[in-house]
Amino acid sequence: MARILYVLGVLLVVLACAEIVPLLSDLLSGNPDWMVFAVSGVLTLFLGIAMVLANANHPERLTIREAYLLTALAWFILPVFGAAPFFFSREGIGITDAVFESVSGLTTTGSTVLTGLDTFPPGLLLWRSMLQWSGGIGIIVMGIAILPLLRVGGMQLMKTEASDTSDKVLPRAKEIATGIGSAYAALTFVCALAYGFAGMGSFDAINHAMTTMATGGFSTHDDSFGYFNEPILPWVAMIFMILGALPFVLYLKAVSRGPMRLLNNAQVRFFLLFCVAVIAVLTLWVWRTMPLSLFEAFSQSAFNAISIVTTTGYTNADYTLWGSASVVFLIITFAGGCSGSTAGSVKIFRYQLMLSFLKSQANRLIHPHGVFPVTYDKREVPSEIVLSVTAFLALYLVSWFGLSVALAFTGLGFQTSVSAAAAALTNVGPGLGPIVGPGGNFSSLSDVAKWMLAGGMLLGRLELFVLFVMVTPRFWREL
Amino acid sequence: MARILYVLGVLLVVLACAEIVPLLSDLLSGNPDWMVFAVSGVLTLFLGIAMVLANANHPERLTIREAYLLTALAWFILPVFGAAPFFFSREGIGITDAVFESVSGLTTTGSTVLTGLDTFPPGLLLWRSMLQWSGGIGIIVMGIAILPLLRVGGMQLMKTEASDTSDKVLPRAKEIATGIGSAYAALTFVCALAYGFAGMGSFDAINHAMTTMATGGFSTHDDSFGYFNEPILPWVAMIFMILGALPFVLYLKAVSRGPMRLLNNAQVRFFLLFCVAVIAVLTLWVWRTMPLSLFEAFSQSAFNAISIVTTTGYTNADYTLWGSASVVFLIITFAGGCSGSTAGSVKIFRYQLMLSFLKSQANRLIHPHGVFPVTYDKREVPSEIVLSVTAFLALYLVSWFGLSVALAFTGLGFQTSVSAAAAALTNVGPGLGPIVGPGGNFSSLSDVAKWMLAGGMLLGRLELFVLFVMVTPRFWREL
Repeated sequence: MARILYVLGVLLVVLACAEIVPLLSDLLSGNPDWMVFAVSGVLTLFLGIAMVLANANHPERLTIREAYLLTALAWFILPVFGAAPFFFSREGIGITDAVFESVSGLTTTGSTVLTGLDTFPPGLLLWRSMLQWSGGIGIIVMGIAILPLLRVGGMQLMKTEASDTSDKVLPRAKEIATGIGSAYAALTFVCALAYGFAGMGSFDAINHAMTTMATGGFSTHDDSFGYFNEPILPWVAMIFMILGALPFVLYLKAVSRGPMRLLNNAQVRFFLLFCVAVIAVLTLWVWRTMPLSLFEAFSQSAFNAISIVTTTGYTNADYTLWGSASVVFLIITFAGGCSGSTAGSVKIFRYQLMLSFLKSQANRLIHPHGVFPVTYDKREVPSEIVLSVTAFLALYLVSWFGLSVALAFTGLGFQTSVSAAAAALTNVGPGLGPIVGPGGNFSSLSDVAKWMLAGGMLLGRLELFVLFVMVTPRFWREL
Repeated sequence: MARILYVLGVLLVVLACAEIVPLLSDLLSGNPDWMVFAVSGVLTLFLGIAMVLANANHPERLTIREAYLLTALAWFILPVFGAAPFFFSREGIGITDAVFESVSGLTTTGSTVLTGLDTFPPGLLLWRSMLQWSGGIGIIVMGIAILPLLRVGGMQLMKTEASDTSDKVLPRAKEIATGIGSAYAALTFVCALAYGFAGMGSFDAINHAMTTMATGGFSTHDDSFGYFNEPILPWVAMIFMILGALPFVLYLKAVSRGPMRLLNNAQVRFFLLFCVAVIAVLTLWVWRTMPLSLFEAFSQSAFNAISIVTTTGYTNADYTLWGSASVVFLIITFAGGCSGSTAGSVKIFRYQLMLSFLKSQANRLIHPHGVFPVTYDKREVPSEIVLSVTAFLALYLVSWFGLSVALAFTGLGFQTSVSAAAAALTNVGPGLGPIVGPGGNFSSLSDVAKWMLAGGMLLGRLELFVLFVMVTPRFWREL
């Protein structure tokens, strides 16, 4: 346990240090809210340092079970401390709402229970965006370094890809982490500049750049992207949402080998083609059924579809009002970006694997004695990984259904329960309908529903199995 | 092909002969509608005999591909000829509605596009019930004899069960078929008697007995079971709906070894426990949220839940009005009865297998080098069957999502599209909402939507893969 507590302590110290940014922001704008961050920061820092010092004599290595425990604990403890500034603020945010907002931030979900964002103190807005931004880098690192080790949901397939020795680009873990961190920071910086050039104020540009690259979707305005009138802004957002949903390892390869490396990846190609197909279908549909010009139909379809597919969750139109098209939005909620990105949800490589699997199964039905291997990126995939992915998908369904029923129990209607459960589990953010849809706000939900949804976000973010493994008796029996 | 055409011809002759029953029924009640059956019957008989005679010199054995083709063709051709009496009748039923009703009947789905059933000629009502009844026996035979051979969706697991040599009850295929046919007929007869004793008129009793044992759900009244006031009737229906959803092979064993053989089966036990759990949850929920007494809440929950879980589809309350509880009804739509019964949907044994699979996967995450076999009924299941079941579930989801989107495209709302797609694919019958829900009628849907739903019913009934295999190029290339 010492090693676990040590690492958690380090994470808390980092979180505490991060609170200096919103503190300064409030202080410089003459806003007394800086005290909120001073108090939260000192509390967090104190506990973090205590944990680090008390466990300085930790063993070097973690067992597999300890790795599970550390991963799960980090995702439970950080949101609690991340919630402190909301709770201590003068905006009258209760403990449930504070934790919900913090979980939604760190998991890069982007559902919000806060209203009146436009008049919020800048520090608190910045804190929300920073939670998403740091959640984003945490997710990339977890996806590249931890989940493949834990062999969760077929992520071991990605292990071979990230540590692909034949490529030998930045072979060591530390260098990869530094490289990816730099790529993440650089892209965020470029994104903020682009937003600024496209007409956003600098504060909005910085906040939105952080939540765009994290594919999180928190905005500094109640109307999300609908607040901005500049027609070019959604297009800038689309580019960077997609960049946030591609495997970050590829950016390192792109730097050393040229940008074509990006398109030379099976997952990226499939993801982009999928986006094009969804946008084409939606555009034609919306154009035919709504009083919009073809270009309006295209730009609104493209922005909202990319926002959902990348699990960002910005919106600039209430697509729940697009009638039947809303079914498409529920379904693409389950798409997700590429693995090794900041995106949530099921993720594209699992669908590619399932397609190859279904094809091989169909062939085996015709030729009982034929051999039809499942392939990914032209390489044969061991059946162990196929089973791992199918188990993941099955558990995803069970979780979705379970969460839907639980939400319905709290008194929510059909569309709201089903879509809110999906939006939380996939870390997308907006669901369907007047309450949890693009035009709604999660604030009117009951406290019980909010805790359920926050639990769903964590469950989805931990790729289900990290949590489910921990509720098996075997996990604890032999710890 | 000769063998395929021969068998199809035999099936058409059987269908034609069956038309004598409604013909006599109309004739005896002095109804001129008997001519409808005379015309349809003679047409069908003529074609059937022609096909039998022309292909009398057929080879003895079918290849695997021919078995697929025969199964699929039978389920496409029989509904067309089954639709003839509807189309030729004086009720003004168009070709779309006639085929929809026939497909819904033979697949034992039970969705109807006909209104004013209470004033329909008796022959046509009887024909609807007979379509379901013969569909029911066809499904049992397909489930026991054909699908395990084709190794579709893990059904090969059931092969070992039905031909379990250690038991040696009725070992030969012909005897099993005769035994099961007798059990089916006997149970239907007992069911009709029970309905009669419980207060139904004899015509209603016979019709409902046929559609109950077939877990089909066609009724002779627009209000389905809501038409009857006798409080005992739903309880009678519940017993026989459950009997229709148990593996029919077990009835043969129960006859020779005593009724405890039924409970001595892993699938049956799990199915019954599942029913109890669902009813308990629903009862408490409905009791708490609706102005009903505990007993009313219990009896309405029990009847409608069992009706959906067994994929029958009778209703006596519009549970869409039960608010959030309707989510539960959508989810249990995917349960299905036991394999080797007349029930549709996913079926219980697949969930049992998936549960064991998920447990084994979770264990493997903790112990990377441990061996945790997937088991069913305490026996180890080869991973080939696990893969087969997961492929089935994946394809089920894809089909559901695809059909939902396609229905939404025709202009239907979210709840209607999603639930109608589920109700068709699972052969349950009623969906949710005012149009396709328990209080609605499929007649107001567009023709396109009706064809899509009929396609969905066939797809579900053919356990998806029988159809999907046939659209692969490989299937045709090497035929």
